[in-house]
Amino acid sequence: MMEIEAYTIKCLSRIRQKAPLIHNITNFVVMNSSANILLAIGASPVMAHCRAEVAEMTSLASALVLNIGTIQEDWLESMICAAKTANSIGIPVILDPVGAGATKLRTEAIKKIMKNCSISVLRGNCSEILSLESSDIKTKGVDTSLSLSDQIVDAAKQMAIEKKCIIAISGEEDCITDGTKVFRVRNGQPIMTKVTGSGCGLTAVTAAFCAVADNNLTLATAAAFGYYGLCGDLAIKTSDKPGSFHVAFIDHLYSTENEEIKKHLKIKEV
Amino acid sequence: MMEIEAYTIKCLSRIRQKAPLIHNITNFVVMNSSANILLAIGASPVMAHCRAEVAEMTSLASALVLNIGTIQEDWLESMICAAKTANSIGIPVILDPVGAGATKLRTEAIKKIMKNCSISVLRGNCSEILSLESSDIKTKGVDTSLSLSDQIVDAAKQMAIEKKCIIAISGEEDCITDGTKVFRVRNGQPIMTKVTGSGCGLTAVTAAFCAVADNNLTLATAAAFGYYGLCGDLAIKTSDKPGSFHVAFIDHLYSTENEEIKKHLKIKEV
Amino acid sequence: MMEIEAYTIKCLSRIRQKAPLIHNITNFVVMNSSANILLAIGASPVMAHCRAEVAEMTSLASALVLNIGTIQEDWLESMICAAKTANSIGIPVILDPVGAGATKLRTEAIKKIMKNCSISVLRGNCSEILSLESSDIKTKGVDTSLSLSDQIVDAAKQMAIEKKCIIAISGEEDCITDGTKVFRVRNGQPIMTKVTGSGCGLTAVTAAFCAVADNNLTLATAAAFGYYGLCGDLAIKTSDKPGSFHVAFIDHLYSTENEEIKKHLKIKEV
Repeated sequence: MMEIEAYTIKCLSRIRQKAPLIHNITNFVVMNSSANILLAIGASPVMAHCRAEVAEMTSLASALVLNIGTIQEDWLESMICAAKTANSIGIPVILDPVGAGATKLRTEAIKKIMKNCSISVLRGNCSEILSLESSDIKTKGVDTSLSLSDQIVDAAKQMAIEKKCIIAISGEEDCITDGTKVFRVRNGQPIMTKVTGSGCGLTAVTAAFCAVADNNLTLATAAAFGYYGLCGDLAIKTSDKPGSFHVAFIDHLYSTENEEIKKHLKIKEV
Repeated sequence: MMEIEAYTIKCLSRIRQKAPLIHNITNFVVMNSSANILLAIGASPVMAHCRAEVAEMTSLASALVLNIGTIQEDWLESMICAAKTANSIGIPVILDPVGAGATKLRTEAIKKIMKNCSISVLRGNCSEILSLESSDIKTKGVDTSLSLSDQIVDAAKQMAIEKKCIIAISGEEDCITDGTKVFRVRNGQPIMTKVTGSGCGLTAVTAAFCAVADNNLTLATAAAFGYYGLCGDLAIKTSDKPGSFHVAFIDHLYSTENEEIKKHLKIKEV
Repeated sequence: MMEIEAYTIKCLSRIRQKAPLIHNITNFVVMNSSANILLAIGASPVMAHCRAEVAEMTSLASALVLNIGTIQEDWLESMICAAKTANSIGIPVILDPVGAGATKLRTEAIKKIMKNCSISVLRGNCSEILSLESSDIKTKGVDTSLSLSDQIVDAAKQMAIEKKCIIAISGEEDCITDGTKVFRVRNGQPIMTKVTGSGCGLTAVTAAFCAVADNNLTLATAAAFGYYGLCGDLAIKTSDKPGSFHVAFIDHLYSTENEEIKKHLKIKEV
């Protein structure tokens, strides 16, 4: 068994044992699905966005998810407050820049968060992530676009160094890098883009893996991507249509066993 | 093959090819289900409500959905701002008056939107729509009530002319009219009223069809109603209970083929 | 047939006949699932939170649900306004103290609501409920913890008398008490804690049962708990994984017949 497979199993087993509390300040569209996804893998989700309680809630948590999918000004303040708390107590912060590049509000929100707080992992699709580097790319809503070329991997490495965080790009093939190490993940199914919140759910799962990672966040992020995609690979055997696929996917997030991880995980360090 | 069937197939095929971006300012209850419904038919949903970004987001979109199901004052301002943008760039605006007639806030919200912006399609159930005409009818929450009599069709025609928009009433039998043409649609199943967001999802699908309609919005709205109901007719064969029905419904929105449309569409121009 | 079984059947039959309107001011995570759960049992859900309409909406309803799962200050004001209306027209108010004890905002919100309004039923898990009594217990997010000891039942009885409301604690075994009568319910499945909004859905179902209870609210609450858990007991036969379990659960909420209630209800007055 490869190191990454053993590590994925170890993280998952810890999540199922410890049920780490994951504090989510996320968008309205995916609150329900992200909560279900976190529960399915064994974590304890809590959603709380009010400025008056976020610091207190974050201080109880093992990881923080920030997701700007339906951002508004007062939520942005809460996100920064929660992230500062997370930074001060040393828990990982996972940031999902939904729709970055599509509007100024979103692009500026991400910049403001990253200026004021330390982010552990920035998880998005290619156009969202790259929109934060240059102004040349305009995202089309929150859709996935652009495939994973070597050029993009290089840009991601550069960005990881500049922004001092792990860059995790999801797509047909995923790329996770901290600027030094690079992991490519080939698990996952195209049908996942036909279920809303698939990307946001991955962000939440990444937070849960990072919550039990003992500071090996790059590997934990790759493991999260691999496990999440693998559950998609298993679910597609039940159905290739989005309604019943999603139901099967939740079932597999809950029940996938170590043997399946050993057999089907497609993560490579490159 | 009848014109309407060919046109429905054409619209659906365009949606699946082009994946038009549909900007939704909608209620909290259905954000997830409307996004999934739009993804299933092949469109690209985006939910964004913040005053600071709605104009920019609408300007990227091919259609705008306004839905007052959980309206609050600042969202109403965003809706009007987005609709004005939609009007200025010439994309269709589909308005869902959820619960109009139930409270003054809702009735006034619809009136304010329609006074300030040009609406392409007003899509609701009978009591919601009629509440906007007279004060004689009080809706019971967001439920469907009243069946489709000739009297109601006449009122809808009158209203379409007065309000200069397509009136689309859903119920056991649906009625779509622009004041001149009238379509009646007999697809759809009663169980759909036992799944929350079924009506709101239809509004979103109507927006997607209108986004690719080349200005033939009345026919596109009828096509949307027919296709949506038809997918319900197919799903009921899998299950007549609301949990599993909804899963099957999403699957059919995604996978229904032209042959089924030709066979089962029940739209009549009267 | 025992009294409680006959009463459960009677309540359910009334809900299915009358479709009572249940006004929910609830959290973002469960709005969709609570609406679907209420529709499945035959009730009419409406979600409305805006200060400008809550009094009017409550005045149309047969019961009011208050749920603080994603509370913010202005929603708290709306809750109190709606509850005062409910009190004045004499409809039951069911309060779900999600995450009480986890943050000061939540604990204070519950205290403020209970100080300003009369609550019919307080429905939570053990740690949430007990957090409102003493400051010794800290909840872990919104998870269930602590099992149902005699000590807890005694504390619940005491609390019911002090707070002049029914205390309804859900867990592996549920406890419903008005300070005099005590019901223990053994229906329900652990997998329900792996589906987000299971507890909140129970709160909504309790509201629907109370809406048709003719003032016998303690028995109606026990009946709601029994029926809800029973549908979980039936659903687990279809699947023991959370995605497909939840689909089956909704189906059973909709379709469970009197015979199954007679056979499988596990409610005892102690």
